[in-house]
Amino acid sequence: MCVLGLGLIGGSVMRAAAAAGREVFGYNRSIEAVQAARFDGFDVTEHLGEALDRAAGSDALIVLAVPMPALPILLGHIREAAPDCPLTDVTSVKGAVLREVEQFGLLDRFVGGHPMAGTAHSGWAAGNAGLFIGAPWVVSVDDHVDAQVWTLVTQLALDCQAVVVPARSDEHDAAAAAISHLPHLFAETLADIAGEVPLAFALAAGSFRDGTRVAATAPDLVRAMCEANAGQLLPALEQGIELLTRTRDALASSGSVAELVEKGHAARMRYDSFSRPEIITTVVGTENWRDELAAAGRAGGMIRSALPVLGSQR
Amino acid sequence: MCVLGLGLIGGSVMRAAAAAGREVFGYNRSIEAVQAARFDGFDVTEHLGEALDRAAGSDALIVLAVPMPALPILLGHIREAAPDCPLTDVTSVKGAVLREVEQFGLLDRFVGGHPMAGTAHSGWAAGNAGLFIGAPWVVSVDDHVDAQVWTLVTQLALDCQAVVVPARSDEHDAAAAAISHLPHLFAETLADIAGEVPLAFALAAGSFRDGTRVAATAPDLVRAMCEANAGQLLPALEQGIELLTRTRDALASSGSVAELVEKGHAARMRYDSFSRPEIITTVVGTENWRDELAAAGRAGGMIRSALPVLGSQR
Repeated sequence: MCVLGLGLIGGSVMRAAAAAGREVFGYNRSIEAVQAARFDGFDVTEHLGEALDRAAGSDALIVLAVPMPALPILLGHIREAAPDCPLTDVTSVKGAVLREVEQFGLLDRFVGGHPMAGTAHSGWAAGNAGLFIGAPWVVSVDDHVDAQVWTLVTQLALDCQAVVVPARSDEHDAAAAAISHLPHLFAETLADIAGEVPLAFALAAGSFRDGTRVAATAPDLVRAMCEANAGQLLPALEQGIELLTRTRDALASSGSVAELVEKGHAARMRYDSFSRPEIITTVVGTENWRDELAAAGRAGGMIRSALPVLGSQR
Repeated sequence: MCVLGLGLIGGSVMRAAAAAGREVFGYNRSIEAVQAARFDGFDVTEHLGEALDRAAGSDALIVLAVPMPALPILLGHIREAAPDCPLTDVTSVKGAVLREVEQFGLLDRFVGGHPMAGTAHSGWAAGNAGLFIGAPWVVSVDDHVDAQVWTLVTQLALDCQAVVVPARSDEHDAAAAAISHLPHLFAETLADIAGEVPLAFALAAGSFRDGTRVAATAPDLVRAMCEANAGQLLPALEQGIELLTRTRDALASSGSVAELVEKGHAARMRYDSFSRPEIITTVVGTENWRDELAAAGRAGGMIRSALPVLGSQR
């Protein structure tokens, strides 16, 4: 397999895959990361053409591990040098990547991925082979997805000791808007408002600390993920504004916040008791296997070991 | 001193004050709590008249430790039986209590208080003598506040091993809206929105858990504090809606959330580096002592041992 981009995630995928006994080589644009990875014993180059020729020659799984803005250049080269290789990515927004890949005519062999792990640091030096242990790794089950490539990508995630959550790209992005991007914007809002109130910081305790913790994230990272997922974040934000506006009106007119508080509490209780069954019965490649996996993922299901594949002896 | 109401806070005040060597007696409406407190060796009664007569006879500091709705009845009895006793409270909203006390003509001897401590449990059995150790205990420095009563209330808080934050009632309530009540409403909103999105709970991780943690609080408690502070919560909520609306418009039109994210991050960084100097130089009872303490509290100042009092030998 071939990892393109040796930052925190790409570098950790390379280490984890190597630790699992896989043959892995890689590419990074900057020579510094390449030298650091070589020093650590990895087979890497700063020449993209060299890496892609080798991938094409060995039909290697290519892992796109560069930031969104670098994607088009990379995809252009892949189209020329290694168009038939199975392809995945590790980006936190799935719809935007899917559209880029489609634009370059590489959809047939592409299955998107999102390992939900990270640290506050970045770059090759920050990576480690254990980064994905026990973490959810979303593997997409969009309509176009090929059973064989899907199985390759899922196996990579399992080799990295992640648990696989099958999901459609659009549903992944809608969920990410609700559970990550909107919480980030709410945290920024709470921090900004309290920052203007005399005495607020002096008295701030648990509910403020929890509610604004992610506002400590570097602004560039927050912007990158929110802005790349604008299509899904906008309706979630709209819904948040509507709910808060209705609550303000109720508080002003009847002095009650009961409606919001009871709904919110009930939802949080459902989350606390949400179960995570293991997905074991789906046979990859049978009719409706993608819809079946998407439904199982939606219900909290996770894949902890390789699923059976239609026509395979496994 | 005399504690009226032996729930979590009142019961803990009684235990902490006794542990500090103070003479303390109390009252509770329900006989169960009275029996439990007696069993634990405390001097308590279920007869309000008896407690108030004793307080009046010994000029005891009376601590109002009942929920807001029970306050008027209690204040009516105090006006009849013990109108000259120094008076404080331990309620989380200060403006509403101040207005009640004023209505009963008891403002002269009243200094509001708010120990910022609690647990998820309630009732006499849930209390403990160590509940206030190191916790901020707001003692009000409103314009009417008497230096002698203020010193008594501050000493009670220090005896309970809290640190005292001097604050005006209106500023306390505005800060509470920003750092507690608005975060609660935001958490409820996030939980409710995610609860409607397929896959959201399946993928939810740190930013969702942090951002919705306080939505697990019992709805009655959230309603009680938000609704009692509607006057200060409404403008904070309005400001939140405005900020989020501006952010939605910017994201929709220019694809950027930069403005909010940068302001929010900067505010959270200021909070992380907010300093908490000890207040030691103010002499209670001198000209402007209340304004001086309010300003010091606003700046993060805390009182850790008794301040000098004008005309006293201390």
